[in-house]
Amino acid sequence: MKLKIINPNTTWSMTEKIGQCASAVANADTHVVAVSPRMGPASIESHYDEALSVPGILDEILQGEQENVDAYVIACFGDPGLYAAREVARGPVIGIAEAAMHMASLVGTSFSVVTTLARTCNMAWHLAERYGMKRFCSNVRACDLPVLELECPGSDARRIITDECRRALAEDGSDCIVLGCAGMADLCEEIADAIGAPVIDGVACAVKMAEALVSARLATSKRGDWARPLPKPYSGVLAAYALN
Amino acid sequence: MKLKIINPNTTWSMTEKIGQCASAVANADTHVVAVSPRMGPASIESHYDEALSVPGILDEILQGEQENVDAYVIACFGDPGLYAAREVARGPVIGIAEAAMHMASLVGTSFSVVTTLARTCNMAWHLAERYGMKRFCSNVRACDLPVLELECPGSDARRIITDECRRALAEDGSDCIVLGCAGMADLCEEIADAIGAPVIDGVACAVKMAEALVSARLATSKRGDWARPLPKPYSGVLAAYALN
Amino acid sequence: MKLKIINPNTTWSMTEKIGQCASAVANADTHVVAVSPRMGPASIESHYDEALSVPGILDEILQGEQENVDAYVIACFGDPGLYAAREVARGPVIGIAEAAMHMASLVGTSFSVVTTLARTCNMAWHLAERYGMKRFCSNVRACDLPVLELECPGSDARRIITDECRRALAEDGSDCIVLGCAGMADLCEEIADAIGAPVIDGVACAVKMAEALVSARLATSKRGDWARPLPKPYSGVLAAYALN
Amino acid sequence: MKLKIINPNTTWSMTEKIGQCASAVANADTHVVAVSPRMGPASIESHYDEALSVPGILDEILQGEQENVDAYVIACFGDPGLYAAREVARGPVIGIAEAAMHMASLVGTSFSVVTTLARTCNMAWHLAERYGMKRFCSNVRACDLPVLELECPGSDARRIITDECRRALAEDGSDCIVLGCAGMADLCEEIADAIGAPVIDGVACAVKMAEALVSARLATSKRGDWARPLPKPYSGVLAAYALN
Amino acid sequence: MKLKIINPNTTWSMTEKIGQCASAVANADTHVVAVSPRMGPASIESHYDEALSVPGILDEILQGEQENVDAYVIACFGDPGLYAAREVARGPVIGIAEAAMHMASLVGTSFSVVTTLARTCNMAWHLAERYGMKRFCSNVRACDLPVLELECPGSDARRIITDECRRALAEDGSDCIVLGCAGMADLCEEIADAIGAPVIDGVACAVKMAEALVSARLATSKRGDWARPLPKPYSGVLAAYALN
Amino acid sequence: MKLKIINPNTTWSMTEKIGQCASAVANADTHVVAVSPRMGPASIESHYDEALSVPGILDEILQGEQENVDAYVIACFGDPGLYAAREVARGPVIGIAEAAMHMASLVGTSFSVVTTLARTCNMAWHLAERYGMKRFCSNVRACDLPVLELECPGSDARRIITDECRRALAEDGSDCIVLGCAGMADLCEEIADAIGAPVIDGVACAVKMAEALVSARLATSKRGDWARPLPKPYSGVLAAYALN
Repeated sequence: MKLKIINPNTTWSMTEKIGQCASAVANADTHVVAVSPRMGPASIESHYDEALSVPGILDEILQGEQENVDAYVIACFGDPGLYAAREVARGPVIGIAEAAMHMASLVGTSFSVVTTLARTCNMAWHLAERYGMKRFCSNVRACDLPVLELECPGSDARRIITDECRRALAEDGSDCIVLGCAGMADLCEEIADAIGAPVIDGVACAVKMAEALVSARLATSKRGDWARPLPKPYSGVLAAYALN
Repeated sequence: MKLKIINPNTTWSMTEKIGQCASAVANADTHVVAVSPRMGPASIESHYDEALSVPGILDEILQGEQENVDAYVIACFGDPGLYAAREVARGPVIGIAEAAMHMASLVGTSFSVVTTLARTCNMAWHLAERYGMKRFCSNVRACDLPVLELECPGSDARRIITDECRRALAEDGSDCIVLGCAGMADLCEEIADAIGAPVIDGVACAVKMAEALVSARLATSKRGDWARPLPKPYSGVLAAYALN
Repeated sequence: MKLKIINPNTTWSMTEKIGQCASAVANADTHVVAVSPRMGPASIESHYDEALSVPGILDEILQGEQENVDAYVIACFGDPGLYAAREVARGPVIGIAEAAMHMASLVGTSFSVVTTLARTCNMAWHLAERYGMKRFCSNVRACDLPVLELECPGSDARRIITDECRRALAEDGSDCIVLGCAGMADLCEEIADAIGAPVIDGVACAVKMAEALVSARLATSKRGDWARPLPKPYSGVLAAYALN
Repeated sequence: MKLKIINPNTTWSMTEKIGQCASAVANADTHVVAVSPRMGPASIESHYDEALSVPGILDEILQGEQENVDAYVIACFGDPGLYAAREVARGPVIGIAEAAMHMASLVGTSFSVVTTLARTCNMAWHLAERYGMKRFCSNVRACDLPVLELECPGSDARRIITDECRRALAEDGSDCIVLGCAGMADLCEEIADAIGAPVIDGVACAVKMAEALVSARLATSKRGDWARPLPKPYSGVLAAYALN
Repeated sequence: MKLKIINPNTTWSMTEKIGQCASAVANADTHVVAVSPRMGPASIESHYDEALSVPGILDEILQGEQENVDAYVIACFGDPGLYAAREVARGPVIGIAEAAMHMASLVGTSFSVVTTLARTCNMAWHLAERYGMKRFCSNVRACDLPVLELECPGSDARRIITDECRRALAEDGSDCIVLGCAGMADLCEEIADAIGAPVIDGVACAVKMAEALVSARLATSKRGDWARPLPKPYSGVLAAYALN
Repeated sequence: MKLKIINPNTTWSMTEKIGQCASAVANADTHVVAVSPRMGPASIESHYDEALSVPGILDEILQGEQENVDAYVIACFGDPGLYAAREVARGPVIGIAEAAMHMASLVGTSFSVVTTLARTCNMAWHLAERYGMKRFCSNVRACDLPVLELECPGSDARRIITDECRRALAEDGSDCIVLGCAGMADLCEEIADAIGAPVIDGVACAVKMAEALVSARLATSKRGDWARPLPKPYSGVLAAYALN
């Protein structure tokens, strides 16, 4: 199967890392393609950034449908554009927050999310509610690290995040940790070893869930509010998004 | 005060109607400006349309900030881009679903939303949850009318909507009705007379709530996740959205 | 329009303060009348006090209906008698806790209530639930100040409350503060300046919401459980409450 | 033990019936006293009636405390004044809706409430939520019978209520029925026989729960918001309610 | 009436203590029989132990039905096998967690559970949710005492538990305490005296509730999912459990 | 990897069918072993049956741990013994209701469960709540088919279930169907074709999720209430369950 993993920001160093982490857990017969959109923000750290990442994501989905992609992963912990993407894709579309939280609920009775900036914690809580995972989420904790700090070779991010994960176990009484940023995907195993508890990376989880759905021959239902959008005119710089 | 009301779709006949309904309830010293964005979908009837209406809305907000707008209303029942808009506006930003549901909860112990297409009902439920209004919402009902049917002079929309409102009172046991589309704003009084119960139009409610907030000198808190977004590069056709 | 604001306790110094705060935010064409009932407790600090404040409130509402009052505000943070008042008033009746919490949810993603005595915190939580605002309420905090301490010229109340508001922002992670007592209405602006975040006073909010409802021509629905009570005999000292 | 059961309305024929039903299930060493207050509404069918029944109830509680009453039952399905009564009574105070719903949850996995007028259904839902019993309540159904119709010898109430109970089992999928009015207490056994499912009468349940609490030596905690109210002046016709 | 109280573990010293505590609060005409099953774990401290205590409990229920038992109490704070037992018993079956939590909600507005091992806290939360009591439960606290430590004459358990109860009142803001283990039943009065707040022991509460139900002639509804199980073959060492 | 799928009832024709359905979706390198326990009920249709299926399930898990099983699936829609199993297994244990509901929430915005007997519907609702999936579950519907009817060659079960699934889509407004019994696993594809919407079989989903977890190197956290049970004596016919 062909799996397209979309890093919704335009920072390609992160896209490559995400692609490597995805490939590392993918089945042998899964062909992983990792991309960043051709427009949008360099990182996603606000509702504003998130909203403006969606046109680029949908552009990648529309292209993917031409390229016979079997499933998509949206690799930002806010799961931007997830429902819109499901409307236009034939195969499954999985968000990494969605996948990580679902998986975490199978591995422990409670998880803490450890993410970058405090201002994004509320978004994570909102997703936990949307996915039914709020009852398993004991806390959402920020490291006060901007997203792109994770891409800086000499940064102290690794240590800061590991420390916050350790505190999460101790203070929140959680059984496991969900990493709250796609840019942390490569730290998963190392932190798990350091803290002695399961650490869940949404990139890996989303890849496995997308594979699972395709393998079980399950695709998005087209009966409800994820049906294909009605054709209509689009204007201005978005004119090309008109479907038919 | 200067109030900008944004119809997030690009159908200007609807924009004018919304502007008139807004002006009709506004205080004497409120200057209402009604606009449609310069890009985006002709109507909003899916997650896809909604997501792609947001760049146009934010463009209008950014412009509004240059024009000393005191408050904004987003006049689509999905309240697209509401949180992103709050991050970049100095004054209050109110969504019409948000305003209508809050007001409805002061007028009755339960309301039914009557909207256009069935595929959008789930979005209304999602907003009701987000705003804490789910406990007051007894049902969300669709009329199976496309949004732009409301703009057709000879259409039967008026009768169809009134009938659905009547059924809502009878079958849902609701005390009042929330109109689920900005394009229904002009029908509010007529339907209320016909069914003998309060009918709540979000356009009017949002105007009054925006005025109330400005008058009480309350603006969006900049402490939490509605703080101003961090400056960062934006690329491609969205490059102009970069803040500083 | 004529707006009657009822301070449900019999302490007229507080009533005057409430009247001034209400007038300060009211529209130019709103005539504000502030009253205390002719019976009941000197302050409201328990379920017992609250229950026994309601006959006085309803007495004021029944009188108001004779005097063509257009809307009422009940100015005690427990919103005593709110639903009973709605049954007998033609126009809207707004509680200050109700108004403050709704407004707060438009201004921030979470609020802390700062109130007087710890024994009333539970009542505030109960109202937050009733109004659907529990999801926005991160904490209800008490200052351990009796209500009437707020009326003592030389009291330290101002400082104590400001300090508690500051702690609320820091410890609860809230974006804004809701003042949990009508007697704090005059402190609103000062505290906001001191703590650098929106502070919401229910008296001002309720006045603006009552005006908004009247201006949008929305009155209490008479279809459900807020319909006018059935006529029936009342006996003893309450005999005069019999409606016809 | 001495148990005072208060019928909060002033219709003494109902009070006698309630007293008989209470005595029928009470332990041999329980002395049941059934009373109506000396002021208030002839029946309780609105928020207005309910609010105005509370001064009379509290008057009976205050008297009871002089008479060494060990426990109280408030015998109206709205449980009026329950929390206020708990603040001033030394021993337990139990509401009949509270008792019936708790007991019902031990007897079946879901119950339907069958009550008098539709306008009171919302109150029953509110109590179900307050007591944590909403998850067991599958429906609240009205018979469109005014409360005092239950006191009319030739009325058809018995048949109408039994029919509604039968419909509740069939249509709501409930396991058992909760009678939603103290005036139905004498019908309990007869309806249970007729419909072949448990029928729960709050009067009997509240008596048994009050006895159980006293026997287990459990009284209202005086640490939280049910602590004794602070002493303070009361004015007007309510002056006598001032505690010291 | 004949009441069988089942200690689901096989530690008979605990069974005797439970029997004494039950008899101490039972009505004069209640004949209490306390038993442990003839198979199963020596104590219940995990989902594994709990699941494997159920065959023994059901064995006692099946026997009890031969012996005309009128009501049963399951005396382990996890309420193991409660719903299965209700399916096969004619009379009421009450769990001690269930009874304690219900009673606690009548005595205070919030309770803390104080239990043995931290790993069982989650089970208590789950039961609180199941019984609708989550809204009253402010915390579940563990003493890090293995269950059987409570049976050791020289143990420090009494002091440790009392201290934890005291901390619960101070830190959780609870009004009362629920003892989270049947083995603590004999400490109830002593701790209540020590901490000055109601302490609720599920053994006593369950006995009183079982008596109350029998006295009010209420038995498990046989209409829903607590109906008698369908007859079918059972195999292996469980063959004797086949009903007919 | 080695995956053991346990049919908790002792009907081996069903076990074989389950094994075939599991193998059909398993990865090429997954070795599926399907078993029934050596003790317990012939089918599971009550809380009683379910509770008594658990000793057999745990026996299979304990054996599996000797046989280096990598992951387990419990193939009964009540997910009996799931948490107990997680405590004693090293690798993941997945229930089929759990897996089906999680997967369904990725495929549609709402699902209906179609199960066998009405008396088990409540159990499905309980699981939906436990897994956080209640918000996606629009209904649980019974076909009034005993479980073993699914094993009868000439039965009309296939048609009855398909008809109920069709009704579910029409009446519940669901986007997809979850089959509520392991014995329906082989009907999945056929019904999906007949009704034109995704049909989710928990056996297939649980196999894929177990593979996904193993492949992502995620195992049950041993920090919380799924830690290995403490060693202790077990007595009677269950003596062999004692761990060390």
